[in-house]
Amino acid sequence: LSVSFAIAIDAMGGDHAPREVVRGAVEAARLNQDVRLLLVGQAEKIRRELESAELESGEPGSARPRPGNIEVVPAEHVIEMSDSPIEALRKKKGSSIEVGTRLVHTGDALAMVSAGNTGACVAAATLFLGLLPEVRRAGIAVSFHAGKSPVVVIDVGANVSSKPEHLIQYGVMASHYARSVLRIESPRVGLLNIGEEDEKGNSLTKSTHNLFKKTALNFLGNVEGVEIFKGVCDVVVCDGFVGNIVLKVSEGLAERLVDLFQTTLERVEPADPASESSRGSIQKHVQGALSNLRAKLDYSEYGGAPLLGVNGVMIIAHGRSDSKAIANAIRVARRMVEMDVNKHITEELQALGLGVSRQ
Amino acid sequence: LSVSFAIAIDAMGGDHAPREVVRGAVEAARLNQDVRLLLVGQAEKIRRELESAELESGEPGSARPRPGNIEVVPAEHVIEMSDSPIEALRKKKGSSIEVGTRLVHTGDALAMVSAGNTGACVAAATLFLGLLPEVRRAGIAVSFHAGKSPVVVIDVGANVSSKPEHLIQYGVMASHYARSVLRIESPRVGLLNIGEEDEKGNSLTKSTHNLFKKTALNFLGNVEGVEIFKGVCDVVVCDGFVGNIVLKVSEGLAERLVDLFQTTLERVEPADPASESSRGSIQKHVQGALSNLRAKLDYSEYGGAPLLGVNGVMIIAHGRSDSKAIANAIRVARRMVEMDVNKHITEELQALGLGVSRQ
Repeated sequence: LSVSFAIAIDAMGGDHAPREVVRGAVEAARLNQDVRLLLVGQAEKIRRELESAELESGEPGSARPRPGNIEVVPAEHVIEMSDSPIEALRKKKGSSIEVGTRLVHTGDALAMVSAGNTGACVAAATLFLGLLPEVRRAGIAVSFHAGKSPVVVIDVGANVSSKPEHLIQYGVMASHYARSVLRIESPRVGLLNIGEEDEKGNSLTKSTHNLFKKTALNFLGNVEGVEIFKGVCDVVVCDGFVGNIVLKVSEGLAERLVDLFQTTLERVEPADPASESSRGSIQKHVQGALSNLRAKLDYSEYGGAPLLGVNGVMIIAHGRSDSKAIANAIRVARRMVEMDVNKHITEELQALGLGVSRQ
Repeated sequence: LSVSFAIAIDAMGGDHAPREVVRGAVEAARLNQDVRLLLVGQAEKIRRELESAELESGEPGSARPRPGNIEVVPAEHVIEMSDSPIEALRKKKGSSIEVGTRLVHTGDALAMVSAGNTGACVAAATLFLGLLPEVRRAGIAVSFHAGKSPVVVIDVGANVSSKPEHLIQYGVMASHYARSVLRIESPRVGLLNIGEEDEKGNSLTKSTHNLFKKTALNFLGNVEGVEIFKGVCDVVVCDGFVGNIVLKVSEGLAERLVDLFQTTLERVEPADPASESSRGSIQKHVQGALSNLRAKLDYSEYGGAPLLGVNGVMIIAHGRSDSKAIANAIRVARRMVEMDVNKHITEELQALGLGVSRQ
């Protein structure tokens, strides 16, 4: 296999970094031998994790050698999850987020994956990569998997004061992403609103609705919050403030409900004590099903969220990401590069002709 | 018992009107014999429902007489759930929503309860009752009960383009409501935002945050969506567009998860066929617990949502309301009248001094 391109991975970003990030990269390296994976961060720590990952993955008593397509790129500083993004980028020169993003800028990598500080990733990408020629604002696209079919919600927080033109561009970008990565042929696009009728909403959604109708997108019209889970559309467009609230409310409610379900189950008493053992076996099954349910609700499982609109591929993985989530995010990054999503976005936005002036 | 005051009830509003509304009113009339309940709507239909409710509630073969404190107030027209609110109020003169709201305006009733078209209720209240002296915008306050403790979210859709002053007033109004009706002594108020740090958010939340810090409210600062379910605050303030989305996303996700949970349970196979019967008994218990869970997530169970800020008491019950939900809404209406919530709101807003000019 000839190595085609490289993907940079922020080894220091996330609640379980560098341990889970390094393990995820090793996993991905084995599955993607024609791609170079560049682990960016504190070299000593990364090497230690690589060694322990080798030991763990081998037969007892012998290490499984590290895949040849993993490299370490040193970066001294670490931007913490709690850091203020812009300030951290300014003060912590040479952070793993900065170094990784610059690798994409120089073309040494074609994509960057980070489970670190979301705001810093957005700022670094905007600053070091810039926007695609026609794009006015980048947007984060998260896939929701709790509903009857996956739904891409854009924007969940990159841009908290959207104009109608931004939302239209989000619709275009997320449609291309849904087509390339989720393999949905003609994604149905909905505008998140407080009612289905055309005239509903605030001034932003009213103007946006009218603009959407003039595009070539498969635009369904307004959709209400409840419809995110009903499988009626594939892409839901909203302002980043609203989208972030939707994301967090969903996370909070899902966690709370799974806990409530669990409590509900634990309180179930068997009708007769003799059935205690079969009750135990049922509960064991249910616990397994609950874990599946938790996974279904955790968007980190699904390969992270692309920051669409920047000139390069940036995948933001959930802070809680484990190795599997990191490997998934790398898979999505690869797919976005190979499907040339950014080129298609640029072409379609040029045809649409909204992006000339950058306001 | 001497009759103290009257509450108007829109007998025609809601998915199960007039049947469930009339039954809810009868239930409430028996529990609140010192309050007159005025059922507003198509007189013939209401009388028929009253008769069948009498028959159902009595011993077999004999009707239980209708409580003496129920009256019928005729209103010819019905505003449907799907009607455009303003247009319907203009074209359907003498609708049950209009007639009921006017009863509050004239003082013939001190509160109005409707499970009908929310937009029409908001418009009728604003038009016929007007706002309280210091109030700039009315807001709908919904109680969420899925979390560790009940949380009042205001506004969920009365006003979709809020200014900072509106949000401050919502904080004051919902605090009084939480104190009087939910009996929370010093309600903790949070501003719904996309991060906890003071400087987070869009221009609306940034300005509002600074204003909130100057009030005498028990202001906690910014809260994220996930915190609605964690019991960290009692009142969550947001713009009506955002609040409506939160409400609908929560409803949709909760319904979807309870369904998923049910499917999960149904797929559980007993470890050995002999345990089939004990499995049945466990599942029966679990089904009961699931119903409780559904009820917990259904805000209609908790007495509906007051439209705070109008000059009178208006309770908007969920369209799905059953008789129990209507009886609960009547209980809340009574409590708001007796606790003089509007007088307290006016006094506190006067002291705060934000409401002089109405922009």
